[in-house]
Formats: sequence, C-alpha cells, structure tokens
Amino acid sequence: MQNFQIQTPTNLIFGKSTQHQIGGLLKPHAKKVLLHYGGGTVKKIGLYDDTKKSLIAAGLDFVELGGVVPNPRLSLVYEGIELCKKEGVDYILAIGGGSAIDSAKAIAIGVCYDGDVWDIYDEKAPIKKALPVATILTIPAAGSEMSLSSVITNEKLGRKYGTSSDLIRPAISIVNPEYFTNLPTSQLGYGVSDIISHIFERYFTNTVNCDITDGMCEAILKTVMKNALIAHAEPTNYEAWSEIGLGGIIAHNNWLGIGRVQDWASHGMEHELSAYNDVAHGAGLAVLTPAWMKYVYKDNINMFVQFAVNVMGVEGSFRDPEAVVLEGISRLEDFYKKIGLKLSLAELDIPESAFEEMAKKATGEFFGKETGIGNFKRLMWQDVVEIYKLCK
Amino acid sequence: MQNFQIQTPTNLIFGKSTQHQIGGLLKPHAKKVLLHYGGGTVKKIGLYDDTKKSLIAAGLDFVELGGVVPNPRLSLVYEGIELCKKEGVDYILAIGGGSAIDSAKAIAIGVCYDGDVWDIYDEKAPIKKALPVATILTIPAAGSEMSLSSVITNEKLGRKYGTSSDLIRPAISIVNPEYFTNLPTSQLGYGVSDIISHIFERYFTNTVNCDITDGMCEAILKTVMKNALIAHAEPTNYEAWSEIGLGGIIAHNNWLGIGRVQDWASHGMEHELSAYNDVAHGAGLAVLTPAWMKYVYKDNINMFVQFAVNVMGVEGSFRDPEAVVLEGISRLEDFYKKIGLKLSLAELDIPESAFEEMAKKATGEFFGKETGIGNFKRLMWQDVVEIYKLCK
Repeated sequence: MQNFQIQTPTNLIFGKSTQHQIGGLLKPHAKKVLLHYGGGTVKKIGLYDDTKKSLIAAGLDFVELGGVVPNPRLSLVYEGIELCKKEGVDYILAIGGGSAIDSAKAIAIGVCYDGDVWDIYDEKAPIKKALPVATILTIPAAGSEMSLSSVITNEKLGRKYGTSSDLIRPAISIVNPEYFTNLPTSQLGYGVSDIISHIFERYFTNTVNCDITDGMCEAILKTVMKNALIAHAEPTNYEAWSEIGLGGIIAHNNWLGIGRVQDWASHGMEHELSAYNDVAHGAGLAVLTPAWMKYVYKDNINMFVQFAVNVMGVEGSFRDPEAVVLEGISRLEDFYKKIGLKLSLAELDIPESAFEEMAKKATGEFFGKETGIGNFKRLMWQDVVEIYKLCK
Repeated sequence: MQNFQIQTPTNLIFGKSTQHQIGGLLKPHAKKVLLHYGGGTVKKIGLYDDTKKSLIAAGLDFVELGGVVPNPRLSLVYEGIELCKKEGVDYILAIGGGSAIDSAKAIAIGVCYDGDVWDIYDEKAPIKKALPVATILTIPAAGSEMSLSSVITNEKLGRKYGTSSDLIRPAISIVNPEYFTNLPTSQLGYGVSDIISHIFERYFTNTVNCDITDGMCEAILKTVMKNALIAHAEPTNYEAWSEIGLGGIIAHNNWLGIGRVQDWASHGMEHELSAYNDVAHGAGLAVLTPAWMKYVYKDNINMFVQFAVNVMGVEGSFRDPEAVVLEGISRLEDFYKKIGLKLSLAELDIPESAFEEMAKKATGEFFGKETGIGNFKRLMWQDVVEIYKLCK
C-alpha cells in the first residue's frame, strides 16, 4: 500500500423524497444561487418544481440556467460564468446527471478565475478557488456528486478534457434513487458501464498489498452488476437502483483508489470517442474496456486472474491462467450485452479511419507532447490504435 | 436500504513518516494547541519528539497535558478543560490511541460548554459546539480518528458512557502504521477485536437490500482477520498493519453503517465490563461477541448463515442452517484464540455475582429507566444476564 491522503467532505443525503431538503440545506451557506440544469427531464420528473419550491420556501434568491447537454459544452459554461458574475451568485446548484454537475463545477471554477476557464482544463492554470457546488442527482453514473473532477467538451476545438481538485468536490449532494426508476433503458447501461469503469480504473493496478481496497472494489463491482440485471428486468425496482446509486457514489469518491496507483487509460481513450462522435460516455467505455483488458492482461496476469475469479466468478481449473482471464473478460462482455450495451466501435459509428487521430489526441502526440496514458501499462498512440482495432 | 445522511470531512493522511506533516497541517487553522497524550509510549516511539519538533517548526504555540489511561477518565478531561480555558487553546491535538483521542474530544466539547461536560455523556445536554480536534494515531482499534463518537469513564460513578456528534469528527488525522509495529502483542488482539466489533455492530441487521454495505463489511472483515494472523506471526510486518489500520478507519467512520439499522448491544454490554474491572475494551468484546451471537442468531438465521459463509468461509451442506451458523461462530472463536484473546468472563476476573448489576446498568434498569439495548434483537436486563452466563 502506498502513502495516501483523502478528504471527502460532501454532505451526502440519500433516499426517498430527499430533494425537498435542498432549500434548508443551502440556506445557511448561500445568498444567491444559480440553478443549473439540462433540458426537459428535470421538469418532467417534477424535480425542477420541487427544487424551486424548496428554494423559495427557504427564502433563497436564485437565477436559472438550463440547456446542459450530455458531454457538456464550454459555450454554456461561459454563459453561466457571465450570468453568475452579473447576478452576484455565490452558490451553484446543479440538478440532473453528471453533465449538469460537471458544467456547474466548471462555472464554479470560472467565476473565481480571471482568465479563460478552458486554461484550467487545458492544464495551463491550476484551480485556486471555486464557488461551492450542491447537487441533486437524477442519473447514477458519473459519480460527480461526490468526486473531485469535472469533464468539459470544447466543441470548437473538438476536445474533451477533465480537471480535478478537492475544491470542486460538491459541498452538499442529494441522491434520491426514485428518479433513477424513470430513466430511459439506455441510461441504465451507460450509467452502470461508467460506474464499473470508475472502479476498474482504480482496481487494475500493479501496486501490491491493497487487500482492503481490492475487497471493496470487488464487493461493489459484484453488487452493481447483480443489481443492474435486476433493474434492467424491472426498471422501477427502487432497491436495485439504490444499490446502483450508492455504488456509483463510492465508485468515484476515491475511497476505492487510496494507496494504489490508478490507471485511467480507458477514460482517456473514451473521451476521444465522445469528442469525435458525441458518443455516450458509458457506451464508449463498454466497448473499450474489454479491448483494453485483452491488450494489457499479460503484463500482470495475476491481477486479471483475481478479477476473473473474485468478480466474474470463474472457477474450476486454474492450471491455464490465460484461459481463466479470457473467460473473465468474456463474462464481462456478456454482462454488457445483457444490459443493452454495444461491443464494437462500428456500432457507435466510429470508423477505422478515425483511429489514428483519436489515438494521437488521447496520448498527446497530436499536440506535440506524447506523454502516453495509463499506469497499469503505459500506452503510446500505437498501443491505443491497437486497442481501437481490437474492438473496431 | 433506508434513507441516510453521512458526512466524513476528516482530512486523512496515511502512511510512513506522515507524522512530520502535523505542524504544517495545523498552522492555517490553529493559534494555540493543546498537545494531549497518555504515558511513556509516545515518548518511547519518538512520536512525542517528532510532534513537538513539527509544531515548533511551524511556529505554533502549544501547551501539554499527558496522563491519559485506557478507558480515559473524566477527572483528566476536567483538568484539560481548565487548562484550555486558562491558556486560550483553540485546537486539540491528540497523539496516541483511541483513549487519547476520546479524551481530546471530551475536552473539545467541554471547553465550549458552560456546565459539567459529564451532562453531555449522561444525555442531559446536546453537543452544540466543540473545538477542532486533530489526531496522530498509534494504535488501530477504536476508530476514533475518523468517528463521531467519544467514550469516557466517570471513575467516581463507575460509569462508562459515550456521546456522538458530527461536531467531534477529527478535522485532521494522521495514521502511520509504522507505529503499530511497536505495539505489545496483547494490543493486536484488543485492537483487532474492537475493529471487528465496529463492523459487526453495523453488519448484523434486519434491514434488507443493503448489498453494497454488506459486501464492504464482509470484505473488510475478511481482510482484517487475514492480516491480523499475519501481524500476529510477524509483528513488524508494515503491510499487514497497514491493512488493519485502514480497516480500522473504515470500520468506524460509518460508511459501513449507512442505510441500515445498527445494533450496538455488544458495545453496551462491554462498557459495563470495563467500568466494573477496567477490562481492555477489545478483550471484553471478544468474550461477549460469540455469546451474543449464540443468544440472538435464531431471530434472523439467514443473516447469520450469510456471515458464516461469506465471512468465515463455511461451505458444504447448507441443509442444516443452524449447524452452518454454529460452525461460523466456532471459527470466529478460534480466530480470537489465535490472536491471543480470552473467551470467558472468568478469565477477565468478572465473577458471576456481578452479572445482574452490570446487566441492569447496561439496559438502564439500574437507573430506573429500562430502555434495553441493541436493535438486531432488543435485549432487556434478563437477556443480558443470559448472555453474560453464556460466556461466564
């Protein structure tokens, strides 16, 4: 186990009807709130009205900015920053999924930064300050409700970059799994794929003596998979969605990643799919993850045997470790299929002709600074092309 | 899963040589620090000197109060409160085990409370304010380094009571497992028994649909048990102690208890042993836990089958669930024995003649308000006597 530091101060409120608490929770901390959201969903499910009622009942002043889309856009972030500065907003409240929350975090950073907020995502400047952010979650997936990261798409440049800082961990997050029971079927697959990937990025490591975090990763992976199948068969099952929702929070608040070197290559490779063709993040991850596994497992086959046995339940003969690993990966692919996910880039309309440029962007080569991605096995752009080919 | 709220803002710094960071970590938040500790151990292991050096290097003003003993005493708490008020202390730093930390929390509460701090432990007044507390941990056991609770012994009244509030979660905790490798052999058993009990108090529940927290409990129980045996055979094994130390933190920061009704009968019954005969808390828990299990398992046998199979590794025929459960409990007793723990009250010098009074104190009957203890099965004083008899 490596030395580590962690601080997760988010006040998490979880369960039925919890959205009504938002006004009272914000009141001691906020003078003027930006209510930030996407499109019609929060209105359709009643959350928009409930939130406004609660803010008004608490006597809180607020302004609104809707229009967040999946893979949230920099242009709307700029608009939010302008609005907050003009209106003297001191607290951002995102209601929606990871996109609304990531957009809110970007606005929270931008309001406190004198230059162009994209500088921060482009690693040209650090985050020194941010407005506090609260969230009411409607989709379990991104984990942004308790994480320290935000991912924004610069639609003009065709780039999707993330930034991280303890300063953008939400101060308050309300998670009511009742909302999850209203999601379209495709969102179950996308969300679960993202949650699983957040765990995989931490789980697959060459760091040894991480039994506590190994065990927690495995327990949560198994539980999320089990309950994803239940929720897929029975979309209104509140209890199954509660397990997925809680799993999604812990998957990305970094308690599973402490003391171990994390990977993050799959996320890096996926961001290029989303930037290229606006692919749903979870859809891209489900295609790339098994391909990544097939490309890297030989570098530390014992880690993948552990995955196959402890997570995917492979049993019987272990005299051929490679067969055990491949059976584990195959079972993961079957699971993705069962919850409605695709397993090839072609099905996501990403042609082979795009592979090289996406790979070079993912590893930095395209921008003249090839750093590579991933820590389980460091991948250069040629490696990434091979992985894209494995799932073309 | 039940609705829940959790907030764990402790800044946790974990690993080798981390004690040297304390001055820098406190500097932005503290003007004058009370350095609070027990006896010779922190001096012998060099922590006392390292801490003072770090505080001085950071230019921090501080006063000292040593003398904390296991089952920390109210009289020293009073002394600490006086000292802090006289010296204008605004931050308490505990270096040591759970006793030093619990004592520090009591002082932190008492400085901000106008009446007798025992009122708060006696549930006559709520905690409304407390000074911030930082900790450097030397014994993994109590989990007080990230928990919201403190337990103090009123030696005049012969009572050991606890109090809880988010206001007494430590703001900063440093955990360096190197210190654990210096512990006397008996401390391994006491510490591990306490950690395991913190998980059991949350794990054994009649709440259903808690797969995420069930799985995390089971993973951490198995890991702590495995590494306890390693550390028992090889007391200087840093990696094994790291697993135990991290397990101890998560066991009691309440992430394992969210969304489920918790029990806490065993802790209640044990506090009477410590109050009666100054028994080490972990020693008392190891005696009581298997007896509690034998007394309550029939009330929800499936929960105990799950424990026997998922934690204690019982396999084979499940056609006699009771046999599965009893085998699980028997394996737990074997584990306790292997790490040097006793399994009877007689070995802790608690005579049968004391059972009735201890039981009546534990359930409140002695004080004219019999509330009972525990939630897995509510126990009245007669039940507690039966449990004491099962391990007499």
